[in-house]
Amino acid sequence: MIARATAHRTQPATTLLGPGDDAAVVSAPDGRTVVTTDVLVEGVHFRLDWSTAEQVGRKAVAQNLADVVAMGAVPTALLVGLACPGSTPVEVVDGLTTGLWDEAAKVGAGIVGGDVVRAEQVVVSVTALGDLQGREPVLRSGARPGDVVAVAGRLGWSAAGLAVLSRGFRAPAAVVSAHRVPEPPYALGLAGARAGASAMTDVSDGLLADLGQLAEASGVSADLDRVALTPAAKLVEVGSALGVDPWTWVLTGGEDHAFLATFGPRRTLPAGWTVIGTVGEGSGVTVDGVDWDPENGPTGWTAFGR
Amino acid sequence: MIARATAHRTQPATTLLGPGDDAAVVSAPDGRTVVTTDVLVEGVHFRLDWSTAEQVGRKAVAQNLADVVAMGAVPTALLVGLACPGSTPVEVVDGLTTGLWDEAAKVGAGIVGGDVVRAEQVVVSVTALGDLQGREPVLRSGARPGDVVAVAGRLGWSAAGLAVLSRGFRAPAAVVSAHRVPEPPYALGLAGARAGASAMTDVSDGLLADLGQLAEASGVSADLDRVALTPAAKLVEVGSALGVDPWTWVLTGGEDHAFLATFGPRRTLPAGWTVIGTVGEGSGVTVDGVDWDPENGPTGWTAFGR
Repeated sequence: MIARATAHRTQPATTLLGPGDDAAVVSAPDGRTVVTTDVLVEGVHFRLDWSTAEQVGRKAVAQNLADVVAMGAVPTALLVGLACPGSTPVEVVDGLTTGLWDEAAKVGAGIVGGDVVRAEQVVVSVTALGDLQGREPVLRSGARPGDVVAVAGRLGWSAAGLAVLSRGFRAPAAVVSAHRVPEPPYALGLAGARAGASAMTDVSDGLLADLGQLAEASGVSADLDRVALTPAAKLVEVGSALGVDPWTWVLTGGEDHAFLATFGPRRTLPAGWTVIGTVGEGSGVTVDGVDWDPENGPTGWTAFGR
Repeated sequence: MIARATAHRTQPATTLLGPGDDAAVVSAPDGRTVVTTDVLVEGVHFRLDWSTAEQVGRKAVAQNLADVVAMGAVPTALLVGLACPGSTPVEVVDGLTTGLWDEAAKVGAGIVGGDVVRAEQVVVSVTALGDLQGREPVLRSGARPGDVVAVAGRLGWSAAGLAVLSRGFRAPAAVVSAHRVPEPPYALGLAGARAGASAMTDVSDGLLADLGQLAEASGVSADLDRVALTPAAKLVEVGSALGVDPWTWVLTGGEDHAFLATFGPRRTLPAGWTVIGTVGEGSGVTVDGVDWDPENGPTGWTAFGR
């Protein structure tokens, strides 16, 4: 199965030794390696009746690559652990493999190693490595009062797609495919790092949650600009059809893996980045100065801030 | 759970950024990173009624560290993905965590990241990184005719322990604990690399199987010396009690993670390494010039070689 997954695949120059020995060897010209791992479980993180195996493979790699890029590092290599029942059709394994390699190819990373074992449930664990190219890692803790908050990529599309699939629908395709395969804008993330982002993360748990973590790590508050976050027409349309406030998706929907960063007030933002708020003293995240809480009815807006 | 697993743990100097951000940063002074991953599944690779959670944690780390050392690299960092049912007792997670850190501490590696997710079955995926310290990686493919075959560490003890546990016994402790927690002689493996081993691997699938892979990768044959491999008295005793030929364990038992290497004829072997055979032209692995095959009755020896 491993031979089948690695045969005839082209390794990039960063793969000094690919699969087949006790371990792989990956170049780390910077002298530091950025590394992260994520585990996806069938029935928890994906459903093979909602997504193809190829889409699952792409998603598993995408969320790891987004973590590497969110540190300001260029992804170099991936390792994949696959646990699955002995009855798993070979088409599923082949589909997963294709998805893994296709997404890795987007950033020029190689799949340099892995493990395939038997289990009752399909579990995909992915580890991604990256190179900082001489830059300092962009941490969550670097935001300072006076910085702007900016985002590159979509917010809420994956959550809208999940809502559609959960109701038994398969359309609109735009949001459903956003849920099946996120498209983190890797190049924009790296551009943000090169432009001197003071802090960065990717939106995996939702804008409010991830910005909240970043603000807490930095010891600052953040205020979002409601107008800048106005839901796209497609999200409004889907929300209207399903009876869901699209602001819920924009503010709390994860898995799109947009890049969320802060920049010093005199920095010029790279193309593709949109200012969505400001960093202040204190703690917590507000929208136009007030708390957002879905418990407060369909719009989620409180009349008064804390 | 992640906070609980990482709080109050001391990271080594190689951990430039530990858990808590989108990814970790590990030093790679050599400019190359050795990396490997393994997945262990409850009921397939371990049983929580045969081993404590702590032992499972140690084993999961040990087999990955052995792979890094088998490349001639010093382990620097580990990442751990843990999938488990929501009903998993906190003691099991704490035990796993303790085992992971204790084994990592043996080689001075840090646990720099991970992921904890819900699943029906306990699945532990471990990724290990290592630094080559300026040496070339020791591949499986470097053996040459005229080299000696040597081993550092035990052979067959884990398999004997598994046989004991499979029959419902819990003793002798020496073999049972060898199965529960392998003790790869990491320092000896690194000494073998520094002494100029021409090829190296760790014995995870059994001596004949792993030497067979090494010989195939190198395009050579290997002949083992039966006297040098004589089973330890303890294995003979356990074999006698269970009615199993102890040679089966020595030659085909995996999971002890002894280091198996070849050295050029003029190399001086480091202390702790034992010569067990020679490398020749051709292909295949023999013992005293003949094939060993358990199908040939209780001793496994054929009367005639191929």
